[in-house]
Amino acid sequence: MSTKFQGELKDGWYTEEDFGAVRLGLKIDEVLHEERSPFQEIAVYQSTFFGRILVLDGLVMLTERDEFVYHEMLTHVPLTTLENPRSVLVIGGGDLGCVREILKHESIERVVLCEIDRRVTEVCGVFFPWVAPTLEDPRLETVFDDGVAYIQKHPSSFDLVIVDSTDPVGVAVGLFLREFYGHVAAGLTPGGILAAQTESPHYSPQLVAKIYAELRAAFTEVEAYLGFIPTYPSGCWSWAWASNGRGRQDFFDHARAERIARGCRYYTPQVQEAAFTLPAFARRAVEGESV
Amino acid sequence: MSTKFQGELKDGWYTEEDFGAVRLGLKIDEVLHEERSPFQEIAVYQSTFFGRILVLDGLVMLTERDEFVYHEMLTHVPLTTLENPRSVLVIGGGDLGCVREILKHESIERVVLCEIDRRVTEVCGVFFPWVAPTLEDPRLETVFDDGVAYIQKHPSSFDLVIVDSTDPVGVAVGLFLREFYGHVAAGLTPGGILAAQTESPHYSPQLVAKIYAELRAAFTEVEAYLGFIPTYPSGCWSWAWASNGRGRQDFFDHARAERIARGCRYYTPQVQEAAFTLPAFARRAVEGESV
Repeated sequence: MSTKFQGELKDGWYTEEDFGAVRLGLKIDEVLHEERSPFQEIAVYQSTFFGRILVLDGLVMLTERDEFVYHEMLTHVPLTTLENPRSVLVIGGGDLGCVREILKHESIERVVLCEIDRRVTEVCGVFFPWVAPTLEDPRLETVFDDGVAYIQKHPSSFDLVIVDSTDPVGVAVGLFLREFYGHVAAGLTPGGILAAQTESPHYSPQLVAKIYAELRAAFTEVEAYLGFIPTYPSGCWSWAWASNGRGRQDFFDHARAERIARGCRYYTPQVQEAAFTLPAFARRAVEGESV
Repeated sequence: MSTKFQGELKDGWYTEEDFGAVRLGLKIDEVLHEERSPFQEIAVYQSTFFGRILVLDGLVMLTERDEFVYHEMLTHVPLTTLENPRSVLVIGGGDLGCVREILKHESIERVVLCEIDRRVTEVCGVFFPWVAPTLEDPRLETVFDDGVAYIQKHPSSFDLVIVDSTDPVGVAVGLFLREFYGHVAAGLTPGGILAAQTESPHYSPQLVAKIYAELRAAFTEVEAYLGFIPTYPSGCWSWAWASNGRGRQDFFDHARAERIARGCRYYTPQVQEAAFTLPAFARRAVEGESV
């Protein structure tokens, strides 16, 4: 994806277009909200099949029907590989879906949400039911600032940093570069983890290859995992697990994974492992081989 | 999906619609073929992003860009669980994608393709490059007939029966019922396997639940596995592995799986196992729990 604001609402359908050649269309029953914030276009629609959907700069960020996949996988996969996670920084993620899942882990003492656009959180607070109760949790600290600047001011501070960003266009470009990943590495406690959304290997193998090359410039251990998200381009989405000097399975907490999975609709301890088993084409993309 | 011929070509875009609420649109550069056969609408378009695409009754059956996922997974997964597969029946699959993959297994002596619509194979022979050489393989026998009738006339004949059907509407309805699955079970050699496409658990969990209930009426061992197919509804597709009196891992041929994987873009021996690890929502659909 290379241009901003691909999506449009017309004749009762929200349509998102990739590469000028592939479209996803969602029937819309009601426009709930539309605004231009200082950072981006923010829209919330009531869709027929996916419930309420959040659209930023013309890209679907979440839908009520399938957001569980993205949020469970971006949080529980890294968190269960930490022995005793206490502090988490979420960069982006103003919809609070990640924070909601993170707070399910009992050892968590502090979650910092660093979202550049305060309006995303405010708008989501009106339209998505989990936002208000999550905001009330005393373990959550919200910072409305640039994540790239924030992480540089907080070295050795977080057991896990989650990059819950939009695509690498517009405001989020800096969140996919090695300089930023280096700052994240410096912001982690020893053995800490970066987890990030890393686009679709089916539609964008070259982009995926580039992101993983940037990640490997900052981390010794970098792995990708996949999940099924119908409203993201291609339905095949990837996330990165990255750390320095420790492996993904060194501290996997199976008992906690079992407990967490009881409240999940996607995540299970078995899915935790299987999601890292990449189809050949995706493995080649992640490893930067010709795709 | 419940109505026939959802797709349409208009203003240079082929658009497929599910539930009247979700659309997939593919930009089309050229209409290569359109006809109404005695059984269905057959169309071949040149798409911008996915290469040539085959559309039957308004549903995308395959695209050049992503057909490898469907065909590799529907064939190599069951074939590598057979010790020495010699005979395979493919019901449907007139595009010969499955036959192409099956013939890569050296022990195969006989493949019968039973496709109800001769025109599918003839049209595909003009537009898809693998069809002509596959048709020339002396191990292949083509039968243009009703698969439901064919299997009843050939008891204990096949080590593997693959149901490569369209969706359970129109001509293919009978291929998703327990009576048919019972005939397939009778058509298998001892320890033989049924493999079938079984729709999207993301979009159609109730339909998936129904299909697996029908399968369990005819087979003692029934498992589901998943793969990423961007041009099928939701991008999340399921297949069934079914047999009587033997498990999926009893005869898994890891060495052959490794050899086959060298020529694959999706399948690997590791993917073979991981694909059966279902996300919680999909497992519930397959097991008929509330979804």
